[in-house]
Amino acid sequence: MNPISATEAVEAIEAGTLTSERLVQACLERIAGRDPVVKAWVHLDPALALRQARAADQARGGLLRGVPIGVKDIIDTHDMPTGHNSPIFEGKVPFGDAACVALCRSANSVIMGKTVTTEFANRHPGPTTNPHNANHTPGGSSSGSAAAVADGHVPLAFGTQTGGSVIRPAAYCGIIGYKPTFGDLSRVGIKMQCHSVDTLGLMARTLDDIALFRGVVLALPPVPIDRDIAAPRIGFCRTPIWDDAEPDTRALLEKVAARLGAADVAFAPEFKDILDDHGAITGWETARNYADERLRNPDKISAELMAILKKSDGITLDRYVAAQRRTVAFKAHVDSLFDSIDVLICPSAPGEAPKGQEFTGDPRFNSIWTLAGTPCVTLPLGTGAQGLPLGVQLVGLRHADDKLLSIAQWVLSHA
Amino acid sequence: MNPISATEAVEAIEAGTLTSERLVQACLERIAGRDPVVKAWVHLDPALALRQARAADQARGGLLRGVPIGVKDIIDTHDMPTGHNSPIFEGKVPFGDAACVALCRSANSVIMGKTVTTEFANRHPGPTTNPHNANHTPGGSSSGSAAAVADGHVPLAFGTQTGGSVIRPAAYCGIIGYKPTFGDLSRVGIKMQCHSVDTLGLMARTLDDIALFRGVVLALPPVPIDRDIAAPRIGFCRTPIWDDAEPDTRALLEKVAARLGAADVAFAPEFKDILDDHGAITGWETARNYADERLRNPDKISAELMAILKKSDGITLDRYVAAQRRTVAFKAHVDSLFDSIDVLICPSAPGEAPKGQEFTGDPRFNSIWTLAGTPCVTLPLGTGAQGLPLGVQLVGLRHADDKLLSIAQWVLSHA
Repeated sequence: MNPISATEAVEAIEAGTLTSERLVQACLERIAGRDPVVKAWVHLDPALALRQARAADQARGGLLRGVPIGVKDIIDTHDMPTGHNSPIFEGKVPFGDAACVALCRSANSVIMGKTVTTEFANRHPGPTTNPHNANHTPGGSSSGSAAAVADGHVPLAFGTQTGGSVIRPAAYCGIIGYKPTFGDLSRVGIKMQCHSVDTLGLMARTLDDIALFRGVVLALPPVPIDRDIAAPRIGFCRTPIWDDAEPDTRALLEKVAARLGAADVAFAPEFKDILDDHGAITGWETARNYADERLRNPDKISAELMAILKKSDGITLDRYVAAQRRTVAFKAHVDSLFDSIDVLICPSAPGEAPKGQEFTGDPRFNSIWTLAGTPCVTLPLGTGAQGLPLGVQLVGLRHADDKLLSIAQWVLSHA
Repeated sequence: MNPISATEAVEAIEAGTLTSERLVQACLERIAGRDPVVKAWVHLDPALALRQARAADQARGGLLRGVPIGVKDIIDTHDMPTGHNSPIFEGKVPFGDAACVALCRSANSVIMGKTVTTEFANRHPGPTTNPHNANHTPGGSSSGSAAAVADGHVPLAFGTQTGGSVIRPAAYCGIIGYKPTFGDLSRVGIKMQCHSVDTLGLMARTLDDIALFRGVVLALPPVPIDRDIAAPRIGFCRTPIWDDAEPDTRALLEKVAARLGAADVAFAPEFKDILDDHGAITGWETARNYADERLRNPDKISAELMAILKKSDGITLDRYVAAQRRTVAFKAHVDSLFDSIDVLICPSAPGEAPKGQEFTGDPRFNSIWTLAGTPCVTLPLGTGAQGLPLGVQLVGLRHADDKLLSIAQWVLSHA
């Protein structure tokens, strides 16, 4: 285990008490020991990682100087294949880096390798296991990134979320996952599933690391976590699907809400079926966005994804437009909830990571907020009946991400 | 000149009175004769086009069976290079087709070749000239697509619009350009400049062709132009930059507005500087979206684009967020204008195509609506002082694209 955080690593490297080469070597040893079970990595070239580390040691400064980062394998890298967990793209090396990868390189970080994704960040799983119990899923679609961070392979990793693909695996693996406000972080060089909701997300083991990572990917000076904030006004949003949460999740949320003095907050009745709109939008867009794969390589698409695409073909344009229009109203409604509170809490997932690798879990507690475009953070605040992590999801006002991260630190200290 | 429209071509091919091979051969001859002056094409492989044509002749059905289409060179094609008019990408062939290209192939069309774009669909021009007068720009960034359709090289072409890159060149070249409602058409496989506004657009010489093309790219049955609609309620929106339109453009718009009995419509005062918000959003996003090109190939970026990127680095996150928030309000405001009218008219550009190839023209009359996300059509309804085409831009309610296209046909008959 390499428990050192990115923030600590940068400080130590700058102070000369650590080199990136030693850090990356230690991470590689951890991976070598653990990945036969965890299976977080789909592409890892130790020599390339060490070359980058030595270059970082020679470099001057950089916000993430020498820090190794895991990159979900739907995100382009010019020096490693980007396979999308699809035989269509197996072994194919893109011409360039995704913007987020380039921004990390500009900060002198080390692009460690590519982490396992479900097929095209959809449902069909990869081989990754949950580091807490290999008989369970790590969640998806950012399976490898969550597992790699949780298991100490790297301090930071990129994920993406269309439904619940950052927050859910982070919660299942017991780490911090962060989905920024929709639109803040560049999606250039990331395979698009649904342009209306696809969001680049960040994973780490500390909120300080999330704040640092966010600054790098925004190409802005990071805004550090503020540990001196006043007690925030907290809302408890059970969401319209509360009854689908498992008992231990409901108990954890009720306990945390009570401890934090959270006020009950509910959606207006016209949004009780908002998840259907998420389904209509993502289904309609996905059906068209894989037009090339469907035309030229239909037999290389999994049966699971093909069934989703074919079912999505039945969504009408009128249904899509109605969903888009209701989403505009929903975003305004969610914004208005923050007139009287600073943050909402709700489950990060229905419960612990499901058993087996076939089903990566139910994303609906996340899809609501992906559609709303709000920033979300999952914090590892509990343990379920099977001994696996449970997350609490914090939801902030759109564009108030820095505030959300500081509130999350406050919640970590007070929950 | 090949004046046959796509709609006519498909009918003739289905009736057996035309073959795709003959049609494509005629288009290739037109190109061979004219492109030394027009310079609309950056990649054209006659043998490949003819192979596709013969395959289309052997195929059964397909909404665009046998019809050749021009593809802007920021849109991926698996069998032709996609160069973005940048030495960074010169000669590079993508792994797959953009979704819009794949959807055309599914309709049995012929992907004719790649049309000239400005560098990364930004400002730095390509060599294309205006087919009406080679001493003038065709407009940009979809320069080659507009010129190719106007000059009879192909009946249909794809463009993209971030500011005014579809409507403006279509107006300058005297054809019909159509920018759909933001989000309707898939952007997968199109180099992203600004995710908040980038829109795939369509160019043709008839509205029937636009309607047919739209259906194909939506993967839906086309909605034909309705020629029996009642007289629409028309609004005349001079926009906050009316004074920047040239006299002949102002005169054309006043004349058309009077003839159509248009009512004056103006933005609420708080949106008089909405173009500044378009600039803040596109600048902020562009600065980050080319992070890879900036890091690894800075000396292959034009001085013009580099200056834009560096200037954009000065836009703060707060400014970006303020622009995003005002845009939400602006979209709602523009929607509300359509409570009392069916369509707005306004200039497609300040005037005729500027002289020379260096400056592709002022996009601001388009950027307003790109930000609003509304569907827009430009119709060639006039001629300017220099004998070049002038367009009238029609703007519809978001998601009411089919209605807009039928109203445009009504305007063509009545203006």
